[in-house]
Amino acid sequence: MKAILYDGPGQISLGERADPHLQTPSDAVVHVMLGCVCGSDLWYYRGESPHALGPIGHEFIGVVEDVGADVRSVTKGDLVIAPFTYCDGTCANCLSGWPSNCMHGGSFGNHGVDGGQGEAVRVPFADATLVKVPAARYSDETLASLLALSDVMCTGHHAAVSAGVKKGDTVAVVGDGAVGLCAIIATKRLGAARIISLSRNPARQKLARTFGATDIVAERGDDATKKILEMTKGVGVDAALECVGTGQSMTTAFSIARVGSVVGAIGAPHGVVVPIDTVIFRNIGLRGGVAPVRRYIPELLGDVLSGRIRPGLVFDFQTTLDNIREAYDAMNERRAIKSLLKIGTP
Amino acid sequence: MKAILYDGPGQISLGERADPHLQTPSDAVVHVMLGCVCGSDLWYYRGESPHALGPIGHEFIGVVEDVGADVRSVTKGDLVIAPFTYCDGTCANCLSGWPSNCMHGGSFGNHGVDGGQGEAVRVPFADATLVKVPAARYSDETLASLLALSDVMCTGHHAAVSAGVKKGDTVAVVGDGAVGLCAIIATKRLGAARIISLSRNPARQKLARTFGATDIVAERGDDATKKILEMTKGVGVDAALECVGTGQSMTTAFSIARVGSVVGAIGAPHGVVVPIDTVIFRNIGLRGGVAPVRRYIPELLGDVLSGRIRPGLVFDFQTTLDNIREAYDAMNERRAIKSLLKIGTP
Repeated sequence: MKAILYDGPGQISLGERADPHLQTPSDAVVHVMLGCVCGSDLWYYRGESPHALGPIGHEFIGVVEDVGADVRSVTKGDLVIAPFTYCDGTCANCLSGWPSNCMHGGSFGNHGVDGGQGEAVRVPFADATLVKVPAARYSDETLASLLALSDVMCTGHHAAVSAGVKKGDTVAVVGDGAVGLCAIIATKRLGAARIISLSRNPARQKLARTFGATDIVAERGDDATKKILEMTKGVGVDAALECVGTGQSMTTAFSIARVGSVVGAIGAPHGVVVPIDTVIFRNIGLRGGVAPVRRYIPELLGDVLSGRIRPGLVFDFQTTLDNIREAYDAMNERRAIKSLLKIGTP
Repeated sequence: MKAILYDGPGQISLGERADPHLQTPSDAVVHVMLGCVCGSDLWYYRGESPHALGPIGHEFIGVVEDVGADVRSVTKGDLVIAPFTYCDGTCANCLSGWPSNCMHGGSFGNHGVDGGQGEAVRVPFADATLVKVPAARYSDETLASLLALSDVMCTGHHAAVSAGVKKGDTVAVVGDGAVGLCAIIATKRLGAARIISLSRNPARQKLARTFGATDIVAERGDDATKKILEMTKGVGVDAALECVGTGQSMTTAFSIARVGSVVGAIGAPHGVVVPIDTVIFRNIGLRGGVAPVRRYIPELLGDVLSGRIRPGLVFDFQTTLDNIREAYDAMNERRAIKSLLKIGTP
């Protein structure tokens, strides 16, 4: 089969990889329809984080081709969403609601496991991992939104849930990447009354407003803090969502969060220092992390299918595996918010 | 009046200070019955943290001597508990449940405000600050437990509440100071099934057991982590309470916390680095801080009066203002858990 392969920083290309097949009775093989590039893929593309050589890509939806003898929840022909990590569903972490921290799981497109940027994937623990989508004909936009459930939409939701966003809140979302934008969707969905998006990019500001942002703050750093404190009468926001993962974004999130609130953080940390004095002396908590996507998909799927939320709009660039470099470069150069890969047909 | 005065590191002595009197209609003047020394007092005693020169001590109970014209909730002769901070009860932080972060408040015994280590205190915002205790004759032990509500018991409770301790949990308490021991009381009160106390001091281990600890771990650092992970089948504890405030104690708390849990932290931070990778990649949160004592006292007062909880047992050394150096030294040299000061009579 065709699959994108990582050969080192900057070295990403379309290559050949053995067709996946069932290895255990709990496996499924999925024919990938749509994949995409994640902001976190850019870290190793740029050589700023390590990544195992070989297959890559951890977000995909597709059609089940084959299932092992023990698989009960999906069958050949089903349209399925794969969370970006596979999980056994039976370990202590899975049972307590943290499938992305499964003790026997891992992420797709890492350490030799098939990636979502390829034609097919062997999915371990298929029953616990895959989510079946009701059979129907879906528009391209709905399919893109289903793909967004494999990571970014659920990750944005995790930022909002971690921060305890509730009805009537004033919330600030730090970061206008795909996850930050999805965090706006999640924040609105949870009933926030005022949603402040920190963004200086006109296209992203526009999408932020489409998703429910009521205010845009284009300033950064101390200027952003000053403006948001003015907007909140010096009190700060009820929830600050850190959707970048840099030292500056974390500092900003803590500086605009009101006393007693929780910073919801989902950015993979690069140079982040948690301001512990702010935690202790202002009672501002920190929660978040790698989103328990498998737990969230069922909760969000209905809203995608009804059109109530439209996270697929974050895909503003579309191409195929043959053109993978452009998919990465468009995001790396911030020409695109998120690149979608059309890989197979239903 | 007599009051303990801070003249610099190591310079703590009994001196004279003007008798307090009402300055605004919302003030009260309280005649101090019992005061005590806090672990946080030792930081400036040792010269490791700054403190304004002048009166000190932020924990006390006493009898109301005089009230301003606007004061409604307490009157002359009432026995009252003072939280370690005063608060107006009307600012945004007070109204949202964070009186210790009052925008117009402060702590007793700081920046010239009368301290609890003295014969009398002018209490600002008396209605919002003081908690009246029902009139009765109380034993010395009960009075000591009421004094504990001014800080350590509520602070231990805050660690447990911040970590979300619930019925049936396995909880580890890092730190065997007065607050750590009170955190054991709070953890048991909230229904934890297994309470692991990290302590290597026999007297404190004994009190930890009295308060409800089911297990004692005398190891520290990596050895403590290894032991607690063994005790929890590699999963970690449902809640880790950080009751010290050092880098090592925070590291230990995060290393023994299970995926998805929250570290409840109340120690004033000294050299603490939050392990952000653990936060993000293991979904372990951090909450806590300066306890909202005024909010917690009413919830805990009934349990003190009924004898269900006995936090006053943390006071294992008792003296008077004349002997203040020994009160500090006994704690500083870890001969005492917490020093009580008998100051006035009812």
